[in-house]
Amino acid sequence: MRFLSDNTAGACPEVMAALQEVNHGRVPAYGEDEWTRRLDGVLGGYFGTAVRAFPVISGTAANALALATLSPPYGAIFAHEESHIAVDECGAPGFFSGGAQLMLLPGEHGRVKVESIRAALGHLRGDVHNVQPAALSLVQATDLGTAYRPDELRALSEFAHGRGMKVHMDGARFANVVAFLGCHPGDITWRAGIDVLSFGATKNGCMAAEAVVFFDPALARDFELRRKRAGHLLSKLRFLSAQLLAYVETGACQRNAAKANRLAQQIARAAGGSLLHPVEANEVFVSLGEERRKALRAAGFEFYDWGPEEAGAARLVVSWDQPEDEVRALCAALERTA
Amino acid sequence: MRFLSDNTAGACPEVMAALQEVNHGRVPAYGEDEWTRRLDGVLGGYFGTAVRAFPVISGTAANALALATLSPPYGAIFAHEESHIAVDECGAPGFFSGGAQLMLLPGEHGRVKVESIRAALGHLRGDVHNVQPAALSLVQATDLGTAYRPDELRALSEFAHGRGMKVHMDGARFANVVAFLGCHPGDITWRAGIDVLSFGATKNGCMAAEAVVFFDPALARDFELRRKRAGHLLSKLRFLSAQLLAYVETGACQRNAAKANRLAQQIARAAGGSLLHPVEANEVFVSLGEERRKALRAAGFEFYDWGPEEAGAARLVVSWDQPEDEVRALCAALERTA
Amino acid sequence: MRFLSDNTAGACPEVMAALQEVNHGRVPAYGEDEWTRRLDGVLGGYFGTAVRAFPVISGTAANALALATLSPPYGAIFAHEESHIAVDECGAPGFFSGGAQLMLLPGEHGRVKVESIRAALGHLRGDVHNVQPAALSLVQATDLGTAYRPDELRALSEFAHGRGMKVHMDGARFANVVAFLGCHPGDITWRAGIDVLSFGATKNGCMAAEAVVFFDPALARDFELRRKRAGHLLSKLRFLSAQLLAYVETGACQRNAAKANRLAQQIARAAGGSLLHPVEANEVFVSLGEERRKALRAAGFEFYDWGPEEAGAARLVVSWDQPEDEVRALCAALERTA
Amino acid sequence: MRFLSDNTAGACPEVMAALQEVNHGRVPAYGEDEWTRRLDGVLGGYFGTAVRAFPVISGTAANALALATLSPPYGAIFAHEESHIAVDECGAPGFFSGGAQLMLLPGEHGRVKVESIRAALGHLRGDVHNVQPAALSLVQATDLGTAYRPDELRALSEFAHGRGMKVHMDGARFANVVAFLGCHPGDITWRAGIDVLSFGATKNGCMAAEAVVFFDPALARDFELRRKRAGHLLSKLRFLSAQLLAYVETGACQRNAAKANRLAQQIARAAGGSLLHPVEANEVFVSLGEERRKALRAAGFEFYDWGPEEAGAARLVVSWDQPEDEVRALCAALERTA
Repeated sequence: MRFLSDNTAGACPEVMAALQEVNHGRVPAYGEDEWTRRLDGVLGGYFGTAVRAFPVISGTAANALALATLSPPYGAIFAHEESHIAVDECGAPGFFSGGAQLMLLPGEHGRVKVESIRAALGHLRGDVHNVQPAALSLVQATDLGTAYRPDELRALSEFAHGRGMKVHMDGARFANVVAFLGCHPGDITWRAGIDVLSFGATKNGCMAAEAVVFFDPALARDFELRRKRAGHLLSKLRFLSAQLLAYVETGACQRNAAKANRLAQQIARAAGGSLLHPVEANEVFVSLGEERRKALRAAGFEFYDWGPEEAGAARLVVSWDQPEDEVRALCAALERTA
Repeated sequence: MRFLSDNTAGACPEVMAALQEVNHGRVPAYGEDEWTRRLDGVLGGYFGTAVRAFPVISGTAANALALATLSPPYGAIFAHEESHIAVDECGAPGFFSGGAQLMLLPGEHGRVKVESIRAALGHLRGDVHNVQPAALSLVQATDLGTAYRPDELRALSEFAHGRGMKVHMDGARFANVVAFLGCHPGDITWRAGIDVLSFGATKNGCMAAEAVVFFDPALARDFELRRKRAGHLLSKLRFLSAQLLAYVETGACQRNAAKANRLAQQIARAAGGSLLHPVEANEVFVSLGEERRKALRAAGFEFYDWGPEEAGAARLVVSWDQPEDEVRALCAALERTA
Repeated sequence: MRFLSDNTAGACPEVMAALQEVNHGRVPAYGEDEWTRRLDGVLGGYFGTAVRAFPVISGTAANALALATLSPPYGAIFAHEESHIAVDECGAPGFFSGGAQLMLLPGEHGRVKVESIRAALGHLRGDVHNVQPAALSLVQATDLGTAYRPDELRALSEFAHGRGMKVHMDGARFANVVAFLGCHPGDITWRAGIDVLSFGATKNGCMAAEAVVFFDPALARDFELRRKRAGHLLSKLRFLSAQLLAYVETGACQRNAAKANRLAQQIARAAGGSLLHPVEANEVFVSLGEERRKALRAAGFEFYDWGPEEAGAARLVVSWDQPEDEVRALCAALERTA
Repeated sequence: MRFLSDNTAGACPEVMAALQEVNHGRVPAYGEDEWTRRLDGVLGGYFGTAVRAFPVISGTAANALALATLSPPYGAIFAHEESHIAVDECGAPGFFSGGAQLMLLPGEHGRVKVESIRAALGHLRGDVHNVQPAALSLVQATDLGTAYRPDELRALSEFAHGRGMKVHMDGARFANVVAFLGCHPGDITWRAGIDVLSFGATKNGCMAAEAVVFFDPALARDFELRRKRAGHLLSKLRFLSAQLLAYVETGACQRNAAKANRLAQQIARAAGGSLLHPVEANEVFVSLGEERRKALRAAGFEFYDWGPEEAGAARLVVSWDQPEDEVRALCAALERTA
């Protein structure tokens, strides 16, 4: 029973059906097809505003391409010290941007606060000896499974914009936050000052599909050229666009997220006092200790240890296609070993 | 009736079936799945030697990642002046390598010759003021639809290796050449001195799948890190690996190529004297003149003009899924307008 | 007797005196000193218009930093195939720009023509698959010792600007052209549409000093940051700025160039029919044949062979500090061996 | 009276004399001159072992070029969070390496400890999702004016080597540490496991001269090519090499450092209890408070505030050419305002 990552999940039926559906005839390549042409409209509908949306096949590509569009090579990109771009992308932002420097920030439960950005900015004098503040990158849900509220985001964006920075959101688990907060997707993006979103879809039911969504269309041309030269413009792009269309148009997006969130809450309840962070998406972080981790593994549960060895913590991720009985079994095991 | 590009084609049934087949359960991400683990073996079988093979989603990614593994940032990469890496990848080799310089070579029918490499090398003095010869990149089939023979490749590789260079092959239409020459895949790769191959599969029946195939395993670790930081390591990698497995294991690879080649030969015969290059894969280059191009388009055929406007040339590409009656109609139209 | 390169020359007395003069007291670093602050004004006076001027220590740095300011990473930089940036800077433009691609052009006597740029542009379709036209880089004097006339430059600049490109001039031997044409420095720069100039001073009498001169001040901030992160902002910048000030303010600039040009003309006359290119600066290219090259070397003259071995050509460069008797001896030897 | 930085200092007489001395005749360019050829030997003598030494004109160039030689683009470079490469080089290591990521470490008095590297390494799992440990960069003297002892360096190097990393030393104030410790230059470099040293000379009496010193000659070729394409290979290199030769051969190196150190100790004694860090080179960090900073400035002393505004700290740097009466005046003022 795998609770390793939502990257272990398969693709949902709606997405598989869409792939079959678009697989006929010889259609224009590189995004000139009818499905890709519909993406801006469909995602614009989802977000409640005009957008330019570009499909790519991985979150690392989405994040790094978006950030390279926002930051010059001598830029500083502010992000939480546990964010995916800082620890899980093998230096992708530095590669795509030509050397921009990550400015890593602490922050409880994976969230960045205005105060810590302000403090980090305090070390930069604004002269040519320093990298130049270029972008703030926020993760939603955070890498510790928590969600930024609209007002938190507005405060962060306002501060960043006031310092001449653009704001990027890594929304690898975006739909899970929409489901958790019960908000409109626009409330935690453009209405809260987000300039560019990596709209994750792979984890939550696609095969390999993310969209880079620009709420400011002026940035799109630079992005398109960067995407091409990074090898991220698919020739048979319909197969990627079709995934995103199905994901949003059929409602699979929110359906899958809601289910995973619900199961994660069950686990959270079973975990009780061992919970390390509020569960606001589909990830559960628990302090188990070595004995209990061993016991759970012996009982057939797979998951990652988290943080320093001695902390005895674990991350339990619920996928959109996680069988409910696996979750029940996990809850029982957590309660049994408590 | 589209003869624009084999990128307009769909995915073949064998590939679609494979995607369905692997879509069950929660399986390890990022290549730790059973299908990706089988890739080295299956492709090793196809090539008749041990290989390290890495799936990516585009030819540009395959080429540029492979070349970045072969060339330092101060390297010189020799290639035909009409090759895809020179004119269709928006500078990707420069991006991935950190600035390596393309040394573009002339050559009849899209083929590079030892003499032209030797001449280009003659301009490099070997001191620090010059970029350093690092790689020779050959296209098979060439961008003008022709095929290198094994002995041509051996001569080129020997020369390149003798000058301290590695040899890369852009095999976007590799299977078409195997079908045309009736040779073993090993004959035009490792037996002919090729160090790394971009093994194309997308055009010829996959949805989005290419493999970077290393015949020298020592280069693989560097490649793996570059792939990750370029955002080209898919999380749900099984869906990419499964395409490649099906493509090779079911024989779709050679079946699709053989069919497209056969239809291209029909067009070649119909084109008669207007043929610009020998047809040795699935592309037909013809000198039509403006009138004839117009007439064909009026008759419902879509294709790209090729080369300078005044030359009146056109490129006709046959896809693996091209209906035979479309080809018959095209042949008739070519003969009618001759 | 060395006619290898004007890089073999020493520093002129005016420059040496200036270094002594500024060497007192503790003065602000990184360009906040009084000498650096005067540079814009002094160079503005030389060029007859307001400029932003930044001192660096090598021509490669000047060229590559300037071009990185003009070209995005996915840009195309057009230049003569024998230009310094193409063959003598180890790929520096690709490094500084993050991978911009050189588009090399043929051209008699080292000069680029509008027609050849137009032809090269014809291969670019303007879509995302191509690198994007970003800059035209001209060398003045060219790498074959010839000079562009003001009207040639205007035609080139107009064409380039009309295609959305900026124009860079590599003026490694700029003063020699001003001396040869007897024109105002503004006539072959901003009045002729040049946007940025690498104003060479090292070869012509400085120790190590070039200025990147922006006629469009909007580009300067990006440049300053690129200069710093490339390690090209000297801490004790007064010692670099002082060289440039002395070079221009004392008139050494035009005095040194005029002398070297005059001696080059003597050699040109002695070379007679073996001259390969018009002598319009301080370089003389001659077709000598192997015998005559040997004879001259046996007589104590050092110089570089030029071009393919079989052509038997040689480059003879006169330095600003070349003893007149060395030139007389060379002339005599040329005439003796004719 | 400027105590802003030793970058405000002039060039020492020995260096100025050397520049005059080498300024005659036309000598081979780009390092083929007799002075540059002597560098390896002279610096080898200073360090007591065979070295390959390359002159460059700035500390940023020395550091970033050295690090790019040690780290692949996907490398992790460990350094103190207040080190020059992290906060004063506008992202140069990221630029030169093609995107390597700085891993910043805390550490009392500017010194890195094995424990903090071990902790940082603990966050890297060694898979392809992480940047790969490549280099440890130490500053000697540290950016807080303290010196690593030979045994500290040995422990750090052993640890780093054991983890597959190379060790770089930013020796911007290297001679000051040699003077302070009274040790042999080899004791705090190759004998302590340092692989590459940025041997600073500009601050301590040169005009613009640093040497990148390789104790492992195998790394030199890659470095030479990177230096050239970064525009850091001077054409008239004799003028740079001559500074370094004079600096070492005349003993100015240790003479200047000893004097600056001695004066810094006087200031340290006058500062008494306000001292923030041990004074082990030529920099004095003091906690003054806003009132006292104002008073000192009113009395004519220039210096930089240091750290967060509210801390009221200041950095006082003694240059090699600082007049002794300026130091006496500063000491008196410090005592008067205590």
